[in-house]
Amino acid sequence: MSTKLEQIYEGKAKKVYKTDDPELFIVDYKDDATAFNGKKKGTISGKGVINNRVTNFLMEKLEKEAGVPTHFVKELSERETLVKKVTIVPLEVIIRNIAAGSMSKRLGIPEGTVLPIPTLEFSYKNDDLDDPLINDYHALAMGLATREDIDTITTLAFKVNDYLKTFFAGIGIELVDFKLEFGKTTDGTIILADEISPDTCRFWDSKTHEKLDKDRFRRDLGNVEGAYQEILHRLFGE
Amino acid sequence: MSTKLEQIYEGKAKKVYKTDDPELFIVDYKDDATAFNGKKKGTISGKGVINNRVTNFLMEKLEKEAGVPTHFVKELSERETLVKKVTIVPLEVIIRNIAAGSMSKRLGIPEGTVLPIPTLEFSYKNDDLDDPLINDYHALAMGLATREDIDTITTLAFKVNDYLKTFFAGIGIELVDFKLEFGKTTDGTIILADEISPDTCRFWDSKTHEKLDKDRFRRDLGNVEGAYQEILHRLFGE
Repeated sequence: MSTKLEQIYEGKAKKVYKTDDPELFIVDYKDDATAFNGKKKGTISGKGVINNRVTNFLMEKLEKEAGVPTHFVKELSERETLVKKVTIVPLEVIIRNIAAGSMSKRLGIPEGTVLPIPTLEFSYKNDDLDDPLINDYHALAMGLATREDIDTITTLAFKVNDYLKTFFAGIGIELVDFKLEFGKTTDGTIILADEISPDTCRFWDSKTHEKLDKDRFRRDLGNVEGAYQEILHRLFGE
Repeated sequence: MSTKLEQIYEGKAKKVYKTDDPELFIVDYKDDATAFNGKKKGTISGKGVINNRVTNFLMEKLEKEAGVPTHFVKELSERETLVKKVTIVPLEVIIRNIAAGSMSKRLGIPEGTVLPIPTLEFSYKNDDLDDPLINDYHALAMGLATREDIDTITTLAFKVNDYLKTFFAGIGIELVDFKLEFGKTTDGTIILADEISPDTCRFWDSKTHEKLDKDRFRRDLGNVEGAYQEILHRLFGE
């Protein structure tokens, strides 16, 4: 049971393997870090271990306490997790509570501006095109998702935001923005997949506004490993 | 009556003047042509005259035959038109029936691909930022429009597309895409403003797919004036 079979995918931060159960995959988190669509490369020592634990912890909470269906099944080792097999919907779903990063640059909103409403963005998951921002009409016209998929994903993404924003506030962290990916199970159900970690979220210390996420790597701010460990510490008290 | 008073705005292709009626403006069309957000500049001889006539002709039809409220009041001269005073909603509203231009480039859809559904895009009207693509959430978060404004604009934009697509098909022209701008009158009503012309639409000959619009200028295809005149010819038989 849960035997790791052939690798079916290697992304920038994770590998995915088949198992002897056709409905289950194993995800294996790496320490490799990339930014700016792979133009910047590096390693963040211990990142894979932290992202595996953080993701699983948050997905379990979202599933049990917020009613968000996720791909999480069981943590197998410090870097490996058993997940439900899904076909990834080729949309990067970004929710922003505070302006930062590409939004600040594209729209001229100073980083740190609290947005009056959480904003949701879809990007077309396509490395060759640099994951361009799209809207609902593009997603429909390109056949990336159906109207029903988009509505489900939108509802779930805002539910994730409501839950996580409050949760992180409770441990002294501002949830600035984050990226989600959703997948479809064999029976067509949309569930939360991928990861929720300092690689895919912007976390700022609520008091000092210190960055505790991959922006430390992207922007060469130093103490990258320390930031990832600080997130682990806030979540698990370790 | 309708006396031209001081100029209140000069854009890339038009000037706008106050009149002695506080609710009316005069628009004056220029021959100046710009592309790529002003990086390319030139003159298209006779363009102002053609765009004035084409815009007025189409706005009158939209108003009478499609029930779309517009700013058009009365053509005053070959370059000047009396329009209702509006405050422009800072959104460029783009409808696309066939992939071309920035959509093809950004999303990797070959130019000429007929889209399975018409797609609507909003850009934030801001030259300094190169009119970035945004979605409804951005427009709301940035206070560019209200939810009600966005719904009204969306409904009207699709109504314009339905009408114009059929109309142009009848004169042997494919309406590839076009940009609209809407404004708010003093009483808060949203109406169609700006222009509808070969400057703001992509028109392709239905049979030859020859470009009959500003792409001839943008892409140095030659016979720019001829293309504008051909549109006039198809509309008025002149």
